[in-house]
Amino acid sequence: MSVPQKLYEGKAKIVYTTDDPEILLAHFKDDATAFNAQKRGTIQGKGEINNTISTHLFQRLEAEGVPTHFIETPTANEMRVKRVKIVPIEVIVRNIAAGSLCKQTGIPAGTVLEPTLVEYCYKNDQLGDPLLTRDRLLLLKLATPEQLDEIKALSLKINQVLSEFFEQCGITLVDFKLEFGYTSDGKLVLADEISPDTCRLWNKGETDPNLRVMDKDRFRHDLGNVESAYQQVLERVLAQTQNG
Amino acid sequence: MSVPQKLYEGKAKIVYTTDDPEILLAHFKDDATAFNAQKRGTIQGKGEINNTISTHLFQRLEAEGVPTHFIETPTANEMRVKRVKIVPIEVIVRNIAAGSLCKQTGIPAGTVLEPTLVEYCYKNDQLGDPLLTRDRLLLLKLATPEQLDEIKALSLKINQVLSEFFEQCGITLVDFKLEFGYTSDGKLVLADEISPDTCRLWNKGETDPNLRVMDKDRFRHDLGNVESAYQQVLERVLAQTQNG
Ligand SMILES: Nc1ncnc2c1ncn2[C@@H]1O[C@H](COP(=O)(O)OP(=O)(O)O)[C@@H](O)[C@H]1O
Ligand SMILES: Nc1ncnc2c1ncn2[C@@H]1O[C@H](COP(=O)(O)OP(=O)(O)O)[C@@H](O)[C@H]1O
Ligand SMILES: [Mg+2]
Ligand SMILES: [Mg+2]
Repeated sequence: MSVPQKLYEGKAKIVYTTDDPEILLAHFKDDATAFNAQKRGTIQGKGEINNTISTHLFQRLEAEGVPTHFIETPTANEMRVKRVKIVPIEVIVRNIAAGSLCKQTGIPAGTVLEPTLVEYCYKNDQLGDPLLTRDRLLLLKLATPEQLDEIKALSLKINQVLSEFFEQCGITLVDFKLEFGYTSDGKLVLADEISPDTCRLWNKGETDPNLRVMDKDRFRHDLGNVESAYQQVLERVLAQTQNG
Repeated sequence: MSVPQKLYEGKAKIVYTTDDPEILLAHFKDDATAFNAQKRGTIQGKGEINNTISTHLFQRLEAEGVPTHFIETPTANEMRVKRVKIVPIEVIVRNIAAGSLCKQTGIPAGTVLEPTLVEYCYKNDQLGDPLLTRDRLLLLKLATPEQLDEIKALSLKINQVLSEFFEQCGITLVDFKLEFGYTSDGKLVLADEISPDTCRLWNKGETDPNLRVMDKDRFRHDLGNVESAYQQVLERVLAQTQNG
């Protein structure tokens, strides 16, 4: 058995090699960062919560025909995944206007976006993950037009599956970030994680803009009760997975 | 005769009404601003220089079949123009990578862009003129898809005419900003100005990245000799207009 090597440490996960060159082990951390890591902190229990939520969502997506990097969840805060070459694009899927979209365009927060907006940011911490136009994305050769078409179609399919699932949990899926990658045999799969770190989730019954937030915005904007919000999302996902 | 009213004062021009409701008088100022007006100063003689350069470029464009707002140039720093409803988009046409494109994407300054990049920013000082994706532009209803197609085609035609003209002046047209508007009878025309304030212009023979700059970048980055650079552009434009 070869010794696991730390392949890279990101803001939310540490990724290790395994005996199998095609398989990585992702260790989910409690570390929280926001605003391009200018704000740092810890969310107690986040590693386990996000690993568990991601696990259930990846399984749901696979069941609906969406290829993902997910293999299995050996421990509470670790996930075994297919090693992929990450496409250096953050795909942002927006059902409702929030966050940087509102800040940059003046569109009022809460505006329902029809059709759903699919946006691309350059996954590049040094540059601050800037918004990409289609032409800039192609100029940077981050993807070919054909790859981009496939990424967009898959993102919309994922939005359909996740929106419906969260709806059943009594949660509105406002927006979320996806990362994709190519496996060694050239197949496009959903990678990274899907969690309250990477989604905006609003408690459906609640209209108070501070009370309804069940995601990392509680940490970003110091809204308090961060841990209990993450815990609440986990509980609803688990309950719905058992019922559904 | 009705008294001219100041319609609006921008960063570079004051626009007055005239006796004719369809005609405005644009007064070109010596005021210079950069970085969304965080940097302010004066460029002596700029008003007259930019008015004269714009006049010659609008006339050249009209001769090549590009509709513009230009009517006539009654005084050295004033231009009579057709009143238009400005499309609140700054169209940026880029032949060579420079400025915000490089800062935001990491593309090295000086990279030749083939094909020419046509980009759109939201003309909104409060928001800092943010870059727009096509989807954001349409979401904000700043233009219809058909209007955008016409704006892009016209921008590329303008690039062709201006690139060739500046080339004859011994100047490389690196990039430039355009504003369009609709006349009262619904026709799309080029508006605003075309000048060293709104173009990046490089002296063709010169390879030194500081020496070659003949435009507002001299002011933005404190490169010195701002006035003489603007004057030099004017002289070459005049000489080429007389020869050409
Ligand atoms: N299946 C995978 N194969 C290879 N790399 C992956 C996979 N899934 C996620 N990654 C990458 O793991 C890294 C660590 O994740 P994370 O801590 O979230 O990083 P970041 O700080 O970039 O958000 C990221 O660069 C992510 O793109
Ligand atoms: N033909 C026109 N009709 C109406 N408005 C115009 C016309 N041409 C230019 N403008 C507008 O005149 C204003 C003043 O110009 P300027 O000082 O350059 O403004 P800014 O500070 O927005 O750059 C701008 O809002 C510009 O869009
Ligand atoms: Mg991450
Ligand atoms: Mg202006």
